[in-house]
Amino acid sequence: MSKELVFGHQNPDTDAIVAAKAFAYLETKLGKDVEAVALGEPNAETSFVLNYFDEPTPRIVKAAKPEVDSVMLVDHNEPQQSIADLKDVAVTHVVDHHRIADFNTSAPLFYRAEPVGCTSTILTKMFDENKVEIPAQLAGLMLSAIISDTLLLQSPTTTEDDKIAVKALAEIADIDYQTYGIQMLKAGTDLDSKSDKELIDGDAKSFTMAGKSVRIGQVNTVDLQDVISRQSGIEAAMTAERESEGYDLFITLATNILDSNSELFVSGAPVDVVEKAFNTKLENNRASLPGVVSRKKQVVPPLQNAFEN
Amino acid sequence: MSKELVFGHQNPDTDAIVAAKAFAYLETKLGKDVEAVALGEPNAETSFVLNYFDEPTPRIVKAAKPEVDSVMLVDHNEPQQSIADLKDVAVTHVVDHHRIADFNTSAPLFYRAEPVGCTSTILTKMFDENKVEIPAQLAGLMLSAIISDTLLLQSPTTTEDDKIAVKALAEIADIDYQTYGIQMLKAGTDLDSKSDKELIDGDAKSFTMAGKSVRIGQVNTVDLQDVISRQSGIEAAMTAERESEGYDLFITLATNILDSNSELFVSGAPVDVVEKAFNTKLENNRASLPGVVSRKKQVVPPLQNAFEN
Repeated sequence: MSKELVFGHQNPDTDAIVAAKAFAYLETKLGKDVEAVALGEPNAETSFVLNYFDEPTPRIVKAAKPEVDSVMLVDHNEPQQSIADLKDVAVTHVVDHHRIADFNTSAPLFYRAEPVGCTSTILTKMFDENKVEIPAQLAGLMLSAIISDTLLLQSPTTTEDDKIAVKALAEIADIDYQTYGIQMLKAGTDLDSKSDKELIDGDAKSFTMAGKSVRIGQVNTVDLQDVISRQSGIEAAMTAERESEGYDLFITLATNILDSNSELFVSGAPVDVVEKAFNTKLENNRASLPGVVSRKKQVVPPLQNAFEN
Repeated sequence: MSKELVFGHQNPDTDAIVAAKAFAYLETKLGKDVEAVALGEPNAETSFVLNYFDEPTPRIVKAAKPEVDSVMLVDHNEPQQSIADLKDVAVTHVVDHHRIADFNTSAPLFYRAEPVGCTSTILTKMFDENKVEIPAQLAGLMLSAIISDTLLLQSPTTTEDDKIAVKALAEIADIDYQTYGIQMLKAGTDLDSKSDKELIDGDAKSFTMAGKSVRIGQVNTVDLQDVISRQSGIEAAMTAERESEGYDLFITLATNILDSNSELFVSGAPVDVVEKAFNTKLENNRASLPGVVSRKKQVVPPLQNAFEN
């Protein structure tokens, strides 16, 4: 049996890093030879989490084939969000909570997806199904991933399974998840130290919609005005990225994690499709989206539908 | 909550029919409003199984959208193997043991695939995970599906999980699976009553390989000479189907389920790709493939690779 790498998506968020570690732990216990790696540096929130639980940062890799013949994906499946040379290796396992798109294999594989708030919620169930105990430190990481993805169980992506997992993991980790959760989320919203490019690119993901290349980033904040005051810089950064990377449309969603509202910043075209998707009019390349906090559930599907209809 | 249909692939085999019934039973127990249906008439083997366990044949449907807005797929995911109007409905659940190809969704979903011999093996685990008991009659059906897909645990697709499931299900159903299994497999090999068209089309599936439309059928037999003696009729039927349906290449695999060897019949082009895939030379549009019994594991992957390289 040859070694496999396990990793989450590019521009990793807490779930991408943590789910790789958790799945690698589980697969190791089940007898596989695997290593959790990451496709980029951890963000401020993830660094806080790794530091809090005294866990090492995974090794960062840019290509798989030089090391292995097969890989396991967590928290993503779309090739443009994955490792650059994905087509050169076989994917043997996927654990994910996103739509399935442009993901093709030539052989059967292990694929586990559920429409829940976080990959780490699915992994919590898989530990249970396989009768493998979750160590306290790993439970703390997985708890952090669920808090991150669901904004402390407030996002509309939150399901009953996420709530059950959070309670079980908080007990194993022996943590008051409400107090810890707010501390952790705030640690991820220090935008002042970020350049405009870092801000729009932080956890941006690429999508193909009706043949157009669409880039969608999201930043969390506790004060939307902080982000709005940087609009000219944000727009310039999005335009520069579009031109250098060939994106047709670049969208940045700034989300207030305390009151669950977002502000949308748009660069590129087609603008009318964006307006149709969110039933709004852009003013000064910007629109308020009250109650929108989830890229996956409240931004990607309406945009995809608007592109296709 | 609105009703959903659950079904397996076109040209249903025993697993396609049984997995739909089993998953519908499980989802009903979990509170969903679902109905198991089929995309075609049961074959001779499946009819034997339904009759043996005194189970009704599922209703046959040709379209989903007139009845429901969303569906659950078992034992397949590739759209060209599914219901004709799949693109008009949402897929909320998939339970499958095949490669993933051309399967795209706009929203997250429940997807459970494992590289095991049979969908019913995965479902056996899912009943256990969800702490739902399998009734004896249903256990008999699921046991039959695994025996069918793995040729009584002899196919190279057979895994340890299939063996564990067969033992558990045989116990619940209170059946000697070896004796029953041979009886069941033989019931599926009565080819004399089939026309040439029925023979090549019985459980044929469509694939897209490097842009070419490839149709691959498989018939089980206890005597390959029975099939070889019908070669001219088989070739004429494949040519007629290619012309009427626009397939580039039509392959029929005749498999001796007693000694695990196959004979390959080929119609259309490119023939050199077929020869490369199986490292053989066709003689009289035919080749022997010793030890080949699995379309999924021993025919589709090498053919796909030969097309793409």
